[in-house]
Amino acid sequence: MELFSFVNDALVPAGQASLLIGDLAIQRGYGIFDFFKTLDHRPIYLDDHLDRFFASAAAMRLEVGKTREQLRAMLTTLIEKNGIADSGMRIELTGGYSPDGYTLTQPNLIIQQQPLGTPVTAELHKSIRLITHPHQRQLPGIKTIDYLMAIWLAPVIREAAADDVLYHWNGVVAECPRSNFFIVTAEGVLVTPARDILKGITRMKILEAAGARLRVEVRELRLEELRSAKEAFITSTTKHILPATQIDGLPVGDGAVGPVARWLSEELYELVRKAG
Amino acid sequence: MELFSFVNDALVPAGQASLLIGDLAIQRGYGIFDFFKTLDHRPIYLDDHLDRFFASAAAMRLEVGKTREQLRAMLTTLIEKNGIADSGMRIELTGGYSPDGYTLTQPNLIIQQQPLGTPVTAELHKSIRLITHPHQRQLPGIKTIDYLMAIWLAPVIREAAADDVLYHWNGVVAECPRSNFFIVTAEGVLVTPARDILKGITRMKILEAAGARLRVEVRELRLEELRSAKEAFITSTTKHILPATQIDGLPVGDGAVGPVARWLSEELYELVRKAG
Repeated sequence: MELFSFVNDALVPAGQASLLIGDLAIQRGYGIFDFFKTLDHRPIYLDDHLDRFFASAAAMRLEVGKTREQLRAMLTTLIEKNGIADSGMRIELTGGYSPDGYTLTQPNLIIQQQPLGTPVTAELHKSIRLITHPHQRQLPGIKTIDYLMAIWLAPVIREAAADDVLYHWNGVVAECPRSNFFIVTAEGVLVTPARDILKGITRMKILEAAGARLRVEVRELRLEELRSAKEAFITSTTKHILPATQIDGLPVGDGAVGPVARWLSEELYELVRKAG
Repeated sequence: MELFSFVNDALVPAGQASLLIGDLAIQRGYGIFDFFKTLDHRPIYLDDHLDRFFASAAAMRLEVGKTREQLRAMLTTLIEKNGIADSGMRIELTGGYSPDGYTLTQPNLIIQQQPLGTPVTAELHKSIRLITHPHQRQLPGIKTIDYLMAIWLAPVIREAAADDVLYHWNGVVAECPRSNFFIVTAEGVLVTPARDILKGITRMKILEAAGARLRVEVRELRLEELRSAKEAFITSTTKHILPATQIDGLPVGDGAVGPVARWLSEELYELVRKAG
């Protein structure tokens, strides 16, 4: 089945959707995006993602050039045209076709949809191993297209027989390249970093839900706190919750998936099914 | 006159040269490039630029997919076809059409040529004003396409009535986004930062030439040393040497273009004319 994408106002077959090479994403890596999923043709947490998309665009001095309603209409067109029930949708705004290859101009807008295998049960069948790496993302609160360090580190992660990387800087834990990070302390407190991170929509939903049963702290998380944590997990739109049972080769807690991750996975599963 | 570009092996009109949106430069800002100029149809310091291009590609785990001789042949084709005597040529390698939008695959190669007004005399007719900004570029020794911070700072530079920004981190001066930075100390020593910078070809030529008359130090340059400098200037392929006569609103030395910048501008002008 042929999928379609938007490039600005043109609905084009995904295999032909292109940007001219003068675009500032190609020339200078300059762009922002957001990513959400659909379940049964229904966008999940779309308002939250559109809020963040418009905020990222404004912070990077990019004019969206569409109202929120116009974007919604384009998404609806794509969802109807492509007919993929469960999908990932990506909206990107680039620096545009700059005459001098450097100065911002009218942005280009890209909207893509692809099938996405989203978690189909609340049960956690998988856990991951993390390595830590000293790095502070530039402009961390903005969802830019800059994944230079993350992709560059792929072989380092592979050689360590790990699944992903956790960034820290000056002893303070931040995030994974495409996920937020949480621990459960020995005292049973749920902790996630407060600053210098991309604030994920799933992170926000977890923080809202967790307070019903747990003490929650959004604060500076020190690297050494990982050693005494009972549980650790990462969260993202695609992954929901993935327990990290090993960090830098050492087990987290007893090395097994913990009860807080299991409970929050069930909560999130229910929340997402009800959302839209 | 219609110009041509290469996109991989295809010679295409520049106005139609494009990449599919699945490319990792568009999706993730992942790519490297190099830029050199031609004078009278002759590439300047091409071997140095190709050395750096291959080094950047290897450091970013990107396969060039062409030998140096094949790249030279493509450049020659473009130079003959486009017929621009004095030009800037840009070779870029991106992360390629990644099936999952994240994992590196076979890179895409782009070669572009555009008219470039290169300095036509050795005389310095212009000086610039800099502001300083705390920032350390990620992977600074590699010529990646990441200019996120530089372009983001454009309005900040404009509001300060300045022309460019000088990065520093932990009190140590590094570079401008597209230029290297030098000072002449009160004692007449030429100093340029040693580490955590992109090592420019023009910087290298200046360092080679300056030793004939000056003491040259390639070392850590502290921010506070700017206050007592007699001269400051930036260097790049496009700009050659541009004196910075004001930094953060304060004059450098007596605020006029100094004799070292004038002399090195003449030296560089002669070197570049003889190069090829």
